[in-house]
Amino acid sequence: MITGKNYIGSQLLASGDKIFKTFNPQLNVENPWQITEATADEIKLATAIANKAFLSFQKCTGKEKAQFLRTIADEILALGDSLLEVYCQESGLPRGRAEGERGRTIGQLNAFADLVADGSWVEATIDTAIPDRQPLPKVDIRKMMRPLGTVVVFGSSNFPFAYSTAGGDTASALASGCPVIVKSHPMHAGTSEMVASAVIKAAQKTNMPEGVFSNLNSSGIEVGVQLVQDPLVKAVGFTGSIKGGRALYDLAAQRPEPIPVFAEMGSINPVVILPEALKQNSSKWASACAGSVTLGAGQFCTNPGLILGVKNDDLNTFTDQLASEILKIDPICMLNPSIHKNYVTNNEALSSQNGVEVVAVYDGNDKPNFASQKILAVSGKEFLKNTVLHKEVFGPFSIVVQCENETELVAIINELEGQLTGTLLAEDNELGNFGEVVDALGNRVGRIIFNGMPTGVEVCPAMVHGGPYPSSSDSRFTAVGIDAIKRWVRPFSYQNWPNAQLPEALQDENPLGISRLVNNSKTNSAIS
Amino acid sequence: MITGKNYIGSQLLASGDKIFKTFNPQLNVENPWQITEATADEIKLATAIANKAFLSFQKCTGKEKAQFLRTIADEILALGDSLLEVYCQESGLPRGRAEGERGRTIGQLNAFADLVADGSWVEATIDTAIPDRQPLPKVDIRKMMRPLGTVVVFGSSNFPFAYSTAGGDTASALASGCPVIVKSHPMHAGTSEMVASAVIKAAQKTNMPEGVFSNLNSSGIEVGVQLVQDPLVKAVGFTGSIKGGRALYDLAAQRPEPIPVFAEMGSINPVVILPEALKQNSSKWASACAGSVTLGAGQFCTNPGLILGVKNDDLNTFTDQLASEILKIDPICMLNPSIHKNYVTNNEALSSQNGVEVVAVYDGNDKPNFASQKILAVSGKEFLKNTVLHKEVFGPFSIVVQCENETELVAIINELEGQLTGTLLAEDNELGNFGEVVDALGNRVGRIIFNGMPTGVEVCPAMVHGGPYPSSSDSRFTAVGIDAIKRWVRPFSYQNWPNAQLPEALQDENPLGISRLVNNSKTNSAIS
Repeated sequence: MITGKNYIGSQLLASGDKIFKTFNPQLNVENPWQITEATADEIKLATAIANKAFLSFQKCTGKEKAQFLRTIADEILALGDSLLEVYCQESGLPRGRAEGERGRTIGQLNAFADLVADGSWVEATIDTAIPDRQPLPKVDIRKMMRPLGTVVVFGSSNFPFAYSTAGGDTASALASGCPVIVKSHPMHAGTSEMVASAVIKAAQKTNMPEGVFSNLNSSGIEVGVQLVQDPLVKAVGFTGSIKGGRALYDLAAQRPEPIPVFAEMGSINPVVILPEALKQNSSKWASACAGSVTLGAGQFCTNPGLILGVKNDDLNTFTDQLASEILKIDPICMLNPSIHKNYVTNNEALSSQNGVEVVAVYDGNDKPNFASQKILAVSGKEFLKNTVLHKEVFGPFSIVVQCENETELVAIINELEGQLTGTLLAEDNELGNFGEVVDALGNRVGRIIFNGMPTGVEVCPAMVHGGPYPSSSDSRFTAVGIDAIKRWVRPFSYQNWPNAQLPEALQDENPLGISRLVNNSKTNSAIS
Repeated sequence: MITGKNYIGSQLLASGDKIFKTFNPQLNVENPWQITEATADEIKLATAIANKAFLSFQKCTGKEKAQFLRTIADEILALGDSLLEVYCQESGLPRGRAEGERGRTIGQLNAFADLVADGSWVEATIDTAIPDRQPLPKVDIRKMMRPLGTVVVFGSSNFPFAYSTAGGDTASALASGCPVIVKSHPMHAGTSEMVASAVIKAAQKTNMPEGVFSNLNSSGIEVGVQLVQDPLVKAVGFTGSIKGGRALYDLAAQRPEPIPVFAEMGSINPVVILPEALKQNSSKWASACAGSVTLGAGQFCTNPGLILGVKNDDLNTFTDQLASEILKIDPICMLNPSIHKNYVTNNEALSSQNGVEVVAVYDGNDKPNFASQKILAVSGKEFLKNTVLHKEVFGPFSIVVQCENETELVAIINELEGQLTGTLLAEDNELGNFGEVVDALGNRVGRIIFNGMPTGVEVCPAMVHGGPYPSSSDSRFTAVGIDAIKRWVRPFSYQNWPNAQLPEALQDENPLGISRLVNNSKTNSAIS
């Protein structure tokens, strides 16, 4: 059952009078349940109890935190079909996607549980004393990671599970020992409340401190603004638009005590198709691009919104094939009428730019909130001089840019904003001849793909989901994979600290048996 | 010879007409050489050639970069006595300090050379493909660190070698593969030019690209402002005042493309002396504190500017002993008349606050620019309500705070701004009884010290030199130790990339023999 209330720790509160509803875009009607926005006092209460919880939560052992994370996963599964139904009702996404994304979310929770149960993630580093060193004795210094404090997580519109309430930001922050306050996404606040109930139940079952997790509702920006400005909040995770992410980044940077914001924002994910690939595999790549552009109505951060090639007959053939392939695909319902409306406005704005040709647009789609896919084409020269064409259009949309030559192709890549991904479609022996293209692309992206599509973000240690601004607000971190935990921790040194008073990770005996750097050598051994 | 010109890469340029001189505080006269400020065009040229250099410098092997760093160290040594003389003339610091700091600087350069020659620092992480995974095949993903781009380093006033031109920021940035543009500190611009000449000579000897290093002069803020705002600059390192560091942080955050600024700023480095330590070792700790407060005229980031204890007769005895010990020490020349003037103004401002007692002030010091050490005392109650007393006074100065009880002690620690260090002076069996004090201190600092003094920052992998704001602008990084390199790099993934085209660090054969995380296991082996 959805109460529409805010979880302030384990308490369900709704003292406010601002009410909103979520929307079912498939049926084009509001969902019946009412959501109550968090009040200023409720927000203050949430940050206060989170701050108090931090004192004990930061001391939980890795095994205790692992048990908490695994229990969250179990409790999410225990919500069963009713959770999947609300997910679908609030997002318009199909049941299969709901199941897949739930699996991904549970996989992430368990991956972070494994990480902290093992314990080596704290990067324990020990330099033992050298009392007789000349001219000065060397002190004993031991370093490990410790959590920053309360983290605020903003749910994303397009991943109600995996990048929202108990998604990667929350899982990595809890794993690190940081309490989490979720600002639920207004489009799926009911889903968020249900997932939050699972987190709260897990916290209670595993004896986590009250306040370790809260879930706050809002339809506007006020709740988020107050949270980011609260002195008790120490970091922010966000997935969404450049406008939203930048606003939060600016608020955080302007605080008396600035705090880190990891915002994963927009990206147009350039795909470069090289001449031999065009010649040999034009139809294969046209079909793959059509599928990737329209996957999930193009509502993925890694949607390929830009396809770059050097103009010739092969590129024309490819463009025709892409147009033909993409029109074979049935339109899909978008997440929300506002997202659909933005898609229409934004794709039309780009279509009407100088020199832009509409090479494909799905015709005859009359279902409300369903997105008509569209492909544009433009010359490299026009693209270079018009940065409006460089902006993301969130939806099933892409632009083919016909470059004059390789020089122009490189110039265009160099002019792009930072991107999550860049893709090279090439024949095996072709890559070595386009070193400048590869280098330029590498400097603009967080992940580079050979002969594949950018959609599909594997959750694994080697994944980078992030990249130069504005694809993320800090390219030094990733939102996906176990290294996502690094966003919420800081190194901390103990000097000449008594062994018995050290955290176990740093004690001579190495009671956790973790991997440590001791006097510059990696070892799992004790210090004798 | 000091030309006073700017190194724009290997070119010595001085087209501007703004001239300034450095100052010899020991002799209280200007130094004879003239320094010319960099012009706007020279700054643009420096960032342009650095950006060009980045394309090839980022591809240098670890061994090539190591050779560059080691040659810098050699060339600094080759400058011999003349460098040490200029250092002393521009800082007023004694010859022994110059030698020690040079040794530390060379040690840092060599430590980063070792790190990149070994190569494992890139955190190579490989998840191999699983083509038959259900429901979807798993792609091959390989991740490693790569450099951000041009880094601007601001030299610090108090470490003309170790935190300036070829200091830790520069060494770590060059090691990572980032070109460096130094904005020399106006107080020791001559020293900076000489060290820059060593870097340039080393770059030429080891065939580094033109533009990999520049050294720009200025007496005001304009050069720094233009550098931080230049779109070709990708990160900033700074050591200095809160005012200066925050100004750079704000400029960087307000850019269309915000960039990371690691600013190591002020700190008052609280020292907590527990009751048993007061009872058993009052005179030992009084003497140690007096030495640490006055070391180098108190011009260290880790100078203990705050001493906290619970009031009783033992604390009174300690305070008397501290007063007596500190007056035995001869005053020392400060770095510059302006720093001396600020010291006087700031310590007088704190001395005149409500409830503050001056317990010791050196009398009879009449040498210009020599700092008279001073100790204040104040009640915990007054300290808690007056945050003016929480501000750093750069110089040989400290405040003893007499807390009512342990509760007030904890409350005071919780109210402090972020600090580089926190120190506990305690008897061996005492620490366990003051868990709340230790926890509170741990949450406010980057390094916690048992029964030692905060001055003296060991350069080793386990060191953290950084901490919660404002001791640094981002507590997730350290300015000292090999992990300082992490400030300048970002993770980058290759997906399904052809083995032969991968960087060596990620190739199946592991030609560098580095430690890698392959399918979640650490190994130095090849992938078969």
